Amino acid sequence: MNEIRHRIKALRMELLRLNLDAWYISGTDPHASEYLPDRWQTRAYISGFTGSYGVVVVTQEEAGLWTDSRYFLQAEEQLKGAGIKMYKLRIAEAVPPEKWLAKKLQAGSKVGFDPQTLSVSAFRNLDNCLNKAGISMVETPDLFEKIWENRPEMPTDLVFELKHHYVGLSRKDKKDLLTAELKKYDADFQVITTLDELAWVFNLRGSDIPYNPVFAGYGIVGKNDWILFVDEAKVPHDLKTHFEKEKITLIPYSNFPVWLKSVRGKRIFIDSGSAGFAVYGALHSENKLVEGTSLVALLKAQKNKTELAGFRDAMKKDGVALLEFLFWLRENVGKGTVTEYTAGRKLAEFRSRQNDFKGESFAPIVGYKEHGAIVHLNVGAENALPLEADGILLFDSGGQYLQGTTDITRTVALGEVTQQQKTDFTLVLKGMIALTITKFPAGTKGCHLDILARKALWENGLNYGHGTGHGVGHFLNVHEGPMSIRKEYSEISILPGMVMSNEPGLYREGEYGIRTENMIVCVEKETTTFGHFFGFETLTLCPIDTRLIDFSILSEKEREWLNSYHNLVRQQLKPLIRKELFGFLEELTKDV
Amino acid sequence: MNEIRHRIKALRMELLRLNLDAWYISGTDPHASEYLPDRWQTRAYISGFTGSYGVVVVTQEEAGLWTDSRYFLQAEEQLKGAGIKMYKLRIAEAVPPEKWLAKKLQAGSKVGFDPQTLSVSAFRNLDNCLNKAGISMVETPDLFEKIWENRPEMPTDLVFELKHHYVGLSRKDKKDLLTAELKKYDADFQVITTLDELAWVFNLRGSDIPYNPVFAGYGIVGKNDWILFVDEAKVPHDLKTHFEKEKITLIPYSNFPVWLKSVRGKRIFIDSGSAGFAVYGALHSENKLVEGTSLVALLKAQKNKTELAGFRDAMKKDGVALLEFLFWLRENVGKGTVTEYTAGRKLAEFRSRQNDFKGESFAPIVGYKEHGAIVHLNVGAENALPLEADGILLFDSGGQYLQGTTDITRTVALGEVTQQQKTDFTLVLKGMIALTITKFPAGTKGCHLDILARKALWENGLNYGHGTGHGVGHFLNVHEGPMSIRKEYSEISILPGMVMSNEPGLYREGEYGIRTENMIVCVEKETTTFGHFFGFETLTLCPIDTRLIDFSILSEKEREWLNSYHNLVRQQLKPLIRKELFGFLEELTKDV
Repeated sequence: MNEIRHRIKALRMELLRLNLDAWYISGTDPHASEYLPDRWQTRAYISGFTGSYGVVVVTQEEAGLWTDSRYFLQAEEQLKGAGIKMYKLRIAEAVPPEKWLAKKLQAGSKVGFDPQTLSVSAFRNLDNCLNKAGISMVETPDLFEKIWENRPEMPTDLVFELKHHYVGLSRKDKKDLLTAELKKYDADFQVITTLDELAWVFNLRGSDIPYNPVFAGYGIVGKNDWILFVDEAKVPHDLKTHFEKEKITLIPYSNFPVWLKSVRGKRIFIDSGSAGFAVYGALHSENKLVEGTSLVALLKAQKNKTELAGFRDAMKKDGVALLEFLFWLRENVGKGTVTEYTAGRKLAEFRSRQNDFKGESFAPIVGYKEHGAIVHLNVGAENALPLEADGILLFDSGGQYLQGTTDITRTVALGEVTQQQKTDFTLVLKGMIALTITKFPAGTKGCHLDILARKALWENGLNYGHGTGHGVGHFLNVHEGPMSIRKEYSEISILPGMVMSNEPGLYREGEYGIRTENMIVCVEKETTTFGHFFGFETLTLCPIDTRLIDFSILSEKEREWLNSYHNLVRQQLKPLIRKELFGFLEELTKDV
Repeated sequence: MNEIRHRIKALRMELLRLNLDAWYISGTDPHASEYLPDRWQTRAYISGFTGSYGVVVVTQEEAGLWTDSRYFLQAEEQLKGAGIKMYKLRIAEAVPPEKWLAKKLQAGSKVGFDPQTLSVSAFRNLDNCLNKAGISMVETPDLFEKIWENRPEMPTDLVFELKHHYVGLSRKDKKDLLTAELKKYDADFQVITTLDELAWVFNLRGSDIPYNPVFAGYGIVGKNDWILFVDEAKVPHDLKTHFEKEKITLIPYSNFPVWLKSVRGKRIFIDSGSAGFAVYGALHSENKLVEGTSLVALLKAQKNKTELAGFRDAMKKDGVALLEFLFWLRENVGKGTVTEYTAGRKLAEFRSRQNDFKGESFAPIVGYKEHGAIVHLNVGAENALPLEADGILLFDSGGQYLQGTTDITRTVALGEVTQQQKTDFTLVLKGMIALTITKFPAGTKGCHLDILARKALWENGLNYGHGTGHGVGHFLNVHEGPMSIRKEYSEISILPGMVMSNEPGLYREGEYGIRTENMIVCVEKETTTFGHFFGFETLTLCPIDTRLIDFSILSEKEREWLNSYHNLVRQQLKPLIRKELFGFLEELTKDV
């Protein structure tokens, strides 16, 4: 922990030198990435906290880390001795960093930030709040360059093309779709800054970031502009030839800022929620900026038929791997050889035996007993609990297949379970089913639907602290926008083709955690004189542990859903599994 | 209709004179009132449309009225021949007036507005959108002064004090509560611009506006500031004496703008959603403005024990009047003597027989057959349909009692009803019950709960175009904020003590309309390790027509709720009605 204190001390020396009273570390990279290449693991470097979400602020006297309920326990643990205090976000009494700064600093103070890694809207929010307290925001260079010895370089791995039978739309098709959207805003082009949007719009993938098959780059796409900013060394020769034919200009990644500054007199669409303030700064005085939710993100979120067929393929593979895992679990738990960690590795091994598997889509969460209540804990070999034939195990994991990305959570009984565990499990399941079977009019947003997954819990004085659903990429990021199902408001309606998770849960600290997560896709249901109505279909194919269900609180409709889901799982997986698993699959999916 | 065309022509002459390309008419008064004194019926004056919601924009070539689904049919009807086009708001494809103006006008154009009657946030929204199109907003005097001959003056009726046993908190108590809230924002005082907030905070009522027992005025309340801006002639002598004792300064209404301009160096809380842009303009350069949802509105919305006890009293009176009305309806319908209009008058008559009745809380909506589908139609004697012993009747009405304001809708069978009507009625009822019996954690907002009232309808491809619930004042406005239950996002959480309507509906154009509306109050339910949970109790006491229910689609839980509600209605009303109605009440509230 001494190391962290040294790093913070070094940062404070830089602040003194620059005459700044604080530095704001957004914890992301110039692409607003959630998962980060080593080079941009700045939050972990400065704080020791390894969670995927958090902001760090360092003043001369104090340092704070702000994160949400997924990470409260983990952050508390990892920050011990570092001289950094944890602050909770997304709770009723939350004091976000900008309010904290407004209180801690005197009028006239200066808060530094790196404009590469702070989005336009995050900057405005901070600036607005701090201004009221007479505090100003000051752009600085990336101070990690100064204080981080041997800071990792960006990877130089090759990018590769995702073939047409996986993606369904050519680069040209996507450019045309985007051009049509841009026309509505009278914009010349969109600046693409997030890596998954870039990968999607150019039908390319890479391996610069763990779990996310993306590569570092920027893009400019519009009727008359088609540029990919990526290091030439990353582009295979045949792809270069394609780009030339397609009239896509290739410019080195590091030339992006200079290129931006050369643009004049254009109407440019940017997503101020993800584009760095540096992008805004370079463009805004000489051009007209149109701000909104990324048009690429919206197009990408509504999966096309090829992508959806791919997802269904990927789910079959994932289902086979999961069934193998469940079988292995049953055979091996209680023998003293299995821990949370080795179980996670075993699950990855089963997935890796599937065709077109390209890696895990995130670090699996395997939580036994009280560990299950730590929503996003990533246990290592050293602190993993051994799995006994007792209590319940929660595992949340996913795979990257060329056909699509998966994300699934199951909670299973390893032995005797209590009535409270059964009640909790069943209430969570009721929520998951309620969201699955709902029908809703066009224009409905995730914040309207969120209650469906919580209602049964609320009726019993229970709740969970995380969102209910996030978008899932097509062989891309396991978390993608722009829509979500959570109580926080978002402008974005749930539209046909959107693939999302459906994952209510319940966590009893120190006891156990429960979460059941399927991936669902929004589909058209019917059109009446009252409008268009949409609903969901389930993509995930994996049995739900019926030993954990209290059938007395399941409605007839819910029971029917469960049986029909298990029928589907059986039908889809049976042709793909080895004979030795037939009986196991039958047992896990039998009617109840 | 010629008259309307003349008025618009006169306005266009003024625009020419002022070198303006358009004028924006918010349709409200300097207090952001929904119901308006005659003087501020500007929307009706310029367009002929008499609905309670709508914006009018006049350019040299065109004129438009923007309103929401409550008024689509009515506006279409009333605008005929006026040269004004209706535009729909709160629908998916809505083109709001600012976007319309941005399209219709060329860059460099000027749109005039009266800063008295446009709120700060409405101004910013317009200005922001128009700026992008190179159009500017220009403050003008109130042009109606020029074009409206014999424009009515403001009423000079006396204000009166609402006694302590009705309001529960003294003026001093309320000032102290507000001061404590202002302290959180480090603000010296709040400027009170809306009439219901003013009435509440000073425990005064008036009769300047139809249906709303308020009076024209402004207020300044903070630790060291306590001013009421009201015309002296409206204040009875004994009240003046009270004010002197309490150190409340009285300043004439018309001196408010001048007083504002005299304020220097204060931190002032304003609600930019309701305060006129003129208030902002007078204060912002010499003071620090703190903007937010009115602190008075938030305090007022959370009714105290005395107010809640009053509401329950008012509901008994209202329930007796409604029962008399239902009885009268049964006795008289089909005799050829009753129309929608006379039924509405009769209902008001029954209410007027109750103690402390001070008038209707809004113009009753009595819609028979196809008229029921016109959500907010106000039929006059001339166009009212006769009520036959057939089909269904919707009536939405309310009373002002010294103890509280009521708002209720019932839909009743006047004779044979169809299976579709029964299905529709039952689906609407299921929604109303679902919202009534829900339990939800602290922090839940109206947009989260709205789906509960719609879910049963959505499942059947049905929906309604209005919100589900609005706040109701305590012997004040029948529509009050700041919270609501509707799909649109609002920052304001539903908190204990908040009194709201719960009014899902279903409207089949040209056929019939259904709405069932009770008033509910948010109450604390339980506190668990997962937080505080709230729920609702029903205030309204009036039978729901069981002849319209299809019991095959009502769940056991819903049936139980209905029976227990009818039990409550019977118990509460029986001691208060004449003996002749005993049997009728028994019949209407018998277990099903």
